[in-house]
Amino acid sequence: MEVFAGVDVGGTNIVCGLVSSAGQVVHKLKRPTEAGRGPDAVLERIAAMIEEAVASYRGEDGQPVTLAAAGIGLPGLVDPEEGIAKFAGNLGWRDLPAASRLKARLQLPVFIDNDVRTYVFGEALYGAGAGTGHVIGVTIGTGIASAMVNEGSLFYGFRHMSGELGHIVMEGLSDPCPCGLTGCLETYASASGMVRQARKAIESGEPTVLRSWFPGERLAELTAADLSRAYDQGDALAVSILERAGSLLGRALSYAVSLNSPEMIIIGGGGALAGNRIMKPLEQELMSRILPDYRDRLKIVPAMHNDDAGVTGSAMYAKHKYTALSGSIQDSKA
Amino acid sequence: MEVFAGVDVGGTNIVCGLVSSAGQVVHKLKRPTEAGRGPDAVLERIAAMIEEAVASYRGEDGQPVTLAAAGIGLPGLVDPEEGIAKFAGNLGWRDLPAASRLKARLQLPVFIDNDVRTYVFGEALYGAGAGTGHVIGVTIGTGIASAMVNEGSLFYGFRHMSGELGHIVMEGLSDPCPCGLTGCLETYASASGMVRQARKAIESGEPTVLRSWFPGERLAELTAADLSRAYDQGDALAVSILERAGSLLGRALSYAVSLNSPEMIIIGGGGALAGNRIMKPLEQELMSRILPDYRDRLKIVPAMHNDDAGVTGSAMYAKHKYTALSGSIQDSKA
Repeated sequence: MEVFAGVDVGGTNIVCGLVSSAGQVVHKLKRPTEAGRGPDAVLERIAAMIEEAVASYRGEDGQPVTLAAAGIGLPGLVDPEEGIAKFAGNLGWRDLPAASRLKARLQLPVFIDNDVRTYVFGEALYGAGAGTGHVIGVTIGTGIASAMVNEGSLFYGFRHMSGELGHIVMEGLSDPCPCGLTGCLETYASASGMVRQARKAIESGEPTVLRSWFPGERLAELTAADLSRAYDQGDALAVSILERAGSLLGRALSYAVSLNSPEMIIIGGGGALAGNRIMKPLEQELMSRILPDYRDRLKIVPAMHNDDAGVTGSAMYAKHKYTALSGSIQDSKA
Repeated sequence: MEVFAGVDVGGTNIVCGLVSSAGQVVHKLKRPTEAGRGPDAVLERIAAMIEEAVASYRGEDGQPVTLAAAGIGLPGLVDPEEGIAKFAGNLGWRDLPAASRLKARLQLPVFIDNDVRTYVFGEALYGAGAGTGHVIGVTIGTGIASAMVNEGSLFYGFRHMSGELGHIVMEGLSDPCPCGLTGCLETYASASGMVRQARKAIESGEPTVLRSWFPGERLAELTAADLSRAYDQGDALAVSILERAGSLLGRALSYAVSLNSPEMIIIGGGGALAGNRIMKPLEQELMSRILPDYRDRLKIVPAMHNDDAGVTGSAMYAKHKYTALSGSIQDSKA
């Protein structure tokens, strides 16, 4: 059985999976990233995890699997053509030739790309978007990012820098963003942004059940999941924060629809676990701001594989790159 | 000498040009569209104009030219794959198989697409964007539309409906748009929108030199060019309308930059003749709303061939389609 390795590298953990040609995760490992030990140590850990996954897994027929290629989803700015991790703040990486190093170490075709792109690639082709031609995917997490897949291909833009949905400057927002701009969508609508807004409101004395749940110093423990819990008890602050986040996302996505005409929008990442608490106001705002011709056909859906989409996406990204590469080698031989 | 015909079909006039392989317009005709005579009459006029252009032109060597293919830029919603003009309000066309009809009539490969796309295609590859990989082009006219060219290919989106920059709903605008939405960018920032805002202000008694230029009934004659004239005399109303239009365009384009990361933005169409009166506030607003990494590299430029871009674009669009077609026929023969 031929498989593809998909690796999702986060600031905290690395997840490595073996994925069938059809996009099924058949085996999975998770290890801490320990980025503080430096890029070489992290690359070695990725390579060792891929080897361990292959060595420890047997297919349904009891035989070892054959690894065709590996795909790695990395945070930050990635040049997938050159195989270079240009900049990843939370890993402390800059201009790291990750693809060539891993390729030399593993003796295997290795492809890298930004983790939001590989995630959306996986969801668009093997998840919620399977069978859909034009997909925009959004991840709501520490920040907000987007990626676009058209007829099976990722869209990159100049210097591979498309997809900064979270840094659209929204009217009516006044918080500074670490990027240097003021009023970026993600200062309010990302999971971290929502938590920050809640903390600010609690510190300024707004009435909320969250104060009794997280008294004093414990306020630092508040997470986006707690906002959903408070929302379900009808807490006015939690309701207003989640609805405003959904509404802002809907407004920003209306710009994406008018410009790029997707057939489907997929909402993923940790913040999407808020489900309809965010999706309802998002959909309402978005639909009220786009031409009727879009409105009648656009599908807005949650991601299908929130946990595995990064792994599936990275592996299937590698499969597509590998297949294209094999095809062009065949062509040049013909 | 091999040439390509490029035809730009407007509500008022049809312009037909012969264009060299290098993108030079060598010969050009203009005739009224007379859309009221029906689609068959307009298609026959297009065909006759192409034949007349070829018959009446001799190359530098005095020899007749060879016509390889024709490209037609049509207003409204076009399906370039099926060759169908889906909907064009100002021509009264709906689901017209324009490409196959013209192909049968002319015995020639004929390709059609939306006129903003062919215009931007021409500007991106043979005009202001020559040598640039990722281009977003905007036309400011009766409405506002956009198109995107990536590494030599037009971006379409689902149902070929991308590029509705003019129907982005902007915060702070309250005019209804004929599309059914309220506050669309083009209600204020298109050439027609600016003129409408000026008329409204004049009727409500705002002080402006325009009132003396267009007293009473003559107000109907006011055009966007008059706003530029009044701007140059320091007229406060004209200054505020042109600056607001530029600033709104800059804000809407900041969304396009964050989502799609173009290397260059080209501003064309009649409204772009206002030049720096619009470009300055546009650039200022746009640059203040995008990540520093975009700001350092983005080029914002006026269209190079405002008059001929439609013709050049349609012809070069045909050339690219024709070359791809010839290539795939060669491939299937091989």
